[in-house]
Amino acid sequence: MFIHVANPRFLVTFANFMKLPIVSEESFPASRKIMVQDGELEVPAREVSLGGGEPPLRVYDTSGPQGFEPTAGLPKLRAPWIARRVARGDANFSQMHYARRGELTEEMRFVAIRENVAPELVRDEIARGRAIIPANRNHQELEPMIIGRNFLVKINANIGNSAVTSTIAEEVEKMRWATQWGADTVMDLSTGKNIHETREWIIRNSPVPIGTVPIYQCLEKVKGKAEDLNIDVFLETLIEQAEQGVDYFTIHAGVLLRYIPLTARRMTGIVSRGGSIMAKWCLAHHKESFLYTEFERICEVMKKYDVSFSLGDGLRPGSIADANDAAQFAELETLGELTKVAWKHDVQVMIEGPGHVPMHKIKENMDKQLEICHEAPFYTLGPLVTDIAPGYDHITSGIGAAMIGWFGTAMLCYVTPKEHLGLPNKDDVKTGVITYKIAAHAADLAKGHPGAIERDNALSKARFEFRWQDQFNLSLDPTTAKDFHDETLPADAAKNAHFCSMCGPNFCSMKLTEDVRKIAAEGMQEKAKEFRDKGGEIYQPASEPTA
Amino acid sequence: MFIHVANPRFLVTFANFMKLPIVSEESFPASRKIMVQDGELEVPAREVSLGGGEPPLRVYDTSGPQGFEPTAGLPKLRAPWIARRVARGDANFSQMHYARRGELTEEMRFVAIRENVAPELVRDEIARGRAIIPANRNHQELEPMIIGRNFLVKINANIGNSAVTSTIAEEVEKMRWATQWGADTVMDLSTGKNIHETREWIIRNSPVPIGTVPIYQCLEKVKGKAEDLNIDVFLETLIEQAEQGVDYFTIHAGVLLRYIPLTARRMTGIVSRGGSIMAKWCLAHHKESFLYTEFERICEVMKKYDVSFSLGDGLRPGSIADANDAAQFAELETLGELTKVAWKHDVQVMIEGPGHVPMHKIKENMDKQLEICHEAPFYTLGPLVTDIAPGYDHITSGIGAAMIGWFGTAMLCYVTPKEHLGLPNKDDVKTGVITYKIAAHAADLAKGHPGAIERDNALSKARFEFRWQDQFNLSLDPTTAKDFHDETLPADAAKNAHFCSMCGPNFCSMKLTEDVRKIAAEGMQEKAKEFRDKGGEIYQPASEPTA
Repeated sequence: MFIHVANPRFLVTFANFMKLPIVSEESFPASRKIMVQDGELEVPAREVSLGGGEPPLRVYDTSGPQGFEPTAGLPKLRAPWIARRVARGDANFSQMHYARRGELTEEMRFVAIRENVAPELVRDEIARGRAIIPANRNHQELEPMIIGRNFLVKINANIGNSAVTSTIAEEVEKMRWATQWGADTVMDLSTGKNIHETREWIIRNSPVPIGTVPIYQCLEKVKGKAEDLNIDVFLETLIEQAEQGVDYFTIHAGVLLRYIPLTARRMTGIVSRGGSIMAKWCLAHHKESFLYTEFERICEVMKKYDVSFSLGDGLRPGSIADANDAAQFAELETLGELTKVAWKHDVQVMIEGPGHVPMHKIKENMDKQLEICHEAPFYTLGPLVTDIAPGYDHITSGIGAAMIGWFGTAMLCYVTPKEHLGLPNKDDVKTGVITYKIAAHAADLAKGHPGAIERDNALSKARFEFRWQDQFNLSLDPTTAKDFHDETLPADAAKNAHFCSMCGPNFCSMKLTEDVRKIAAEGMQEKAKEFRDKGGEIYQPASEPTA
Repeated sequence: MFIHVANPRFLVTFANFMKLPIVSEESFPASRKIMVQDGELEVPAREVSLGGGEPPLRVYDTSGPQGFEPTAGLPKLRAPWIARRVARGDANFSQMHYARRGELTEEMRFVAIRENVAPELVRDEIARGRAIIPANRNHQELEPMIIGRNFLVKINANIGNSAVTSTIAEEVEKMRWATQWGADTVMDLSTGKNIHETREWIIRNSPVPIGTVPIYQCLEKVKGKAEDLNIDVFLETLIEQAEQGVDYFTIHAGVLLRYIPLTARRMTGIVSRGGSIMAKWCLAHHKESFLYTEFERICEVMKKYDVSFSLGDGLRPGSIADANDAAQFAELETLGELTKVAWKHDVQVMIEGPGHVPMHKIKENMDKQLEICHEAPFYTLGPLVTDIAPGYDHITSGIGAAMIGWFGTAMLCYVTPKEHLGLPNKDDVKTGVITYKIAAHAADLAKGHPGAIERDNALSKARFEFRWQDQFNLSLDPTTAKDFHDETLPADAAKNAHFCSMCGPNFCSMKLTEDVRKIAAEGMQEKAKEFRDKGGEIYQPASEPTA
C-alpha cells in the first residue's frame, strides 16, 4: 500500500493495462481517466497528456464513471464494503466511529490514495473530528472524499429546483455538469414539487456526496406553516432522506430563542432560509427549537446511516454591514456546544460559515470557528467581500473564499453569477465551479499543500516554451482557453508560434528571454561580479546630466 | 471651500440649476451626471436615484464629458489653469513641485472634491511623494485624479493594438468604454502601426490620465533591434509623447546588468516586454542601460511637462514559481534609489509591481515596496494567485488585487479574461474593469475608507426591502443584474415581488424576517432575558433522548 502511494507512476502504468472509462472529451480533450490500484480498490484520477517530452500530469478527478443512463444510475462501488458491515451487525456506521476504534475502512484507504497521503493520517484526522468523509451507507455509488483542513480544499456546488422553475432532468444534468468541472460535493436545495423524486435521481447518479437541508421538505409537509413544524415530522423526513442516501444534512440547530432579538436591528436581518424558518418557529412557540432540544435523537438517526452534520449558520450575516456581529458569533458558540454532543455519538460534523464579510474581518471568522468548534471542519459560503456587484458575486465571493480557504476553511460553497438574482443555469454552474476551483487551488498553494504547485509549474513551463496546446489542456477550462486564443490567432500554425497576439513577434518577452539565457550562460556571472567590484551598487557620477 | 466639502448635498442642489451632461443611459439607466461646484471648479460625479423614499446616492465618476465626436475631442478643461502657469514663466510643471512650494493647484482642489477630503491633505501627500496626480500640462482634457494609498484605490485599464490586430477607432472606443465603466487611468500599449496617431486620438478623447511604455515606440524606430536603442532616440520619443500629453511613462530603468543572471534559472525568465528589451540591450553592450545611467536627463523632460514616472518592474515574476525571487527584489532596490533621484527633481513617481504571486507571498511585496521605495505609490498588475486558469485570469488576479489593495497598493492594473491568450475585445475590457472595480472597492472597505461602505449599505437595504430596481441600479453593472433577474422572472411585477426565483414565496428568508422583526419588537428582549435566567446557556437535561 505505502509503496503504491510512494510510486504513483507505477500505478498508472499498471492501470494502463485495464479497460478505462473516458473523461468527457468535450471538457478535457487531452485527458483520460485512469484508475489507481490498491488491492481491490480502484481510485479515479485524470491524466493530462503533454507534448515537449513532458510526462503526463495527474490531477484529482470528481467526474465519476462516465456514460451511464440517468435511469440506470451509477454502479454501486461501495455495495460490498457496506454488505460486510451489515453482515457483522454494525449499529453505528459512522466513519468517525470506525476511526475511533482504529479501523481503516475502505473509504479511508480510498481517500488516502486520492489525496496521496497515508491512510493512518486520514483515520486519525477523522477520529479527532478534524476531518469528515460524508458517506451515507445507502449512497453506494459514492466515490469517497474527505473534508478537512489538512487535505485539499474542496468545493460544493448548489443545485435544486424551486417553486418557480426547472425540472428533475435539468437538476440531474446540472449535478453531472458540476462534478465534471470539479465539484467535490453537491447540495440539492430543491424546494419545489417532486423533492423526493428529484433527490432520488440525483443521488443514484452522483459520484460525489450529496447534501440537503431537510427542513425545506418538512415545511412542504406542513404546507409552508413554519409554526406547525415538530420533531416527529423532522425525524420522519431525516429517515426518508437518509434511506435514499443523502450524505450530509444542513441542520440549523444553533438558532436559539435569545439570539433572535440580536438580529432585529440588522441591515438585512436573517438571510438563511432554514435560520428564518426556525426563528419564526421559536417566536411562535416562544421556546427553543426542537432541533436544539431534541438534538440527540437526531444524532441517533445520523449514526445509523452515517449521515454527517453540516451545522447550519442560520444567523449568518446577509450583508457587509452585519458581518461578525453578536448574533452570528452567539450562534457559533451553540454550534460548538452541539459539535461535542454529536461527537459523543461518534457522528461526523462540519460547521457552516458566512456569507458576507469584508476582507479585514475574514480571519476572525476562521480563528473563532477553530477555537469554538474544536477544529471541526469549516464550510463557508464565499464569503462575499462587497455587496455592490450583483451579477458578479462569483467574483466578490471568490476573493473571500480564496482567503478563508488559505486561513483554514476545509470546503468552499460556490456562488454563481446569478446569486441574489435568480437560479443558476448550466453556464452559471460551470462559472461558479471554475471560479471556486481557482479559489480552492489558490488556497492550497498558499497553505503550501505538497503537490499543489505541480500543476502551476507544468502550465507555466508550457507557457514559457510556447506549448500552446499544453497550456490549454493544463488549464481548468481547456476549451475556453483555446477559443480565446483562436479569436485572434485561429490558424493551427499559431498554436506552435513562438509569440502571441498580445505582443507580436518583435515584442515577445519570452522570445527575448531565450537570447538572455544564451548570453547569460556564457559566463555572465563573472562579468556581473566584475561590475559589482567596480561599485556598480552606487548611482554613478558618470551618469549626471551632460547638459 | 471647506463648507462645500462638508455639505455635499447643498452642492448637488446648486448644481441642479445648471445644464448637466448625461451619463450613458445604456450603462446606468437610473443615474445622471452632476457637477459639484467649488468656485470656478466643476467636479463630475454620478448620482443614482433611488425609490422607497431613499435619498440619491452619489458615486465617483470617470466617464468624462459625454456625446463629443472623437474627431473633435473633449473640451480642454485645464487650458486656463495651464495658461496662467505658462504666463508666469514656470519651468517645472510638476504637481510635486507646486505642492512642495505650498501651492494649492486647481488639480489638487479638483481631486480634493472628488475624494471628499481637504485640499491640504492632497497637497501634503503629493509633497512627500506618497501620492501623485498624473497630469501632463498638454493633456488639458483631463479631469484630474489622485493615486495614493490614503485615497480611494484606483484601477487602470490597458488597451492598444499590436502588430497582429485592431484599429485606431477600436482603441478609442475601448478607452471610452473602459472609462464609462470606471477605469481611473488607461494605458495605451500599442506596438503596431500608427502608434503616434492612435495615441493622439486616445489622449484628445480621454478624461482620465493616459500612460504609455515609450520603449515600445523606440523599438519600432530602430526596426525592432533592441541593441540599436540609445538615449537620443529615447529622449526624442519621450518629448514626442510628452508633447501629445501622455500623463505617465512606464520606464524600466531598474534592469541592471548584474540582475540579469538572476533570471537565468527562472521558470519563466523575464516576462516584462520592456524588461526583456532592456535586458537584451544590456547584454549586447555589456553595460548598464541608458535608462539608468541617463536617468536625470529623463527627469529633465518629465518635469517640463509634468509627466509622472511609473518605474517599471522589468524583472517581475511571470509565474507562481518565480514570485518574490532575488531578481525581483534586487530590481526593487534600484527603483527605490531612482525614486530619490526623481524626487530631487520634484518629479512624481509611482512604482510598478507584480504579476504572479501566491496569496501567502503578497504582503511581503507591499511591505518591501513601502520600505524600499520610501512610500511612493505602488501600482500592481493583479497579482494572479495561481497560473492554472488561463481564460479566467481576471479572477485569479482579482483575488490578489483585492488583497494587495487592502495592504496598501494605490492603483491596480486590470487583467482581462484574454490575458496570456489574446488581445481583449470590448466585452473583455468591461469584464476586466468591473472585476477590478470590485477588487478596489473591497480594498477600500477593508481599509475602512470613510464612505466606502455607503454604497454597500444602500444596496443591502434595497435588497432587504425588495427594491429590485434600486438593487440593479446601485450595482456596478445594472443592466447585467437586471438581465439575470429577467431570465427567471421577466414580468415587471416580479420587480416588486417580495420574493425571488431562488426560494419562491414560502422560503423567502427576508420575507420571514419581517415577521421576526415584528414579534421581536414586542418585548422579546425581556423574554429572552427571562430565558437566560433559567440557565438557557447550558444544554438542557430535558432534551435528552426520550428513547
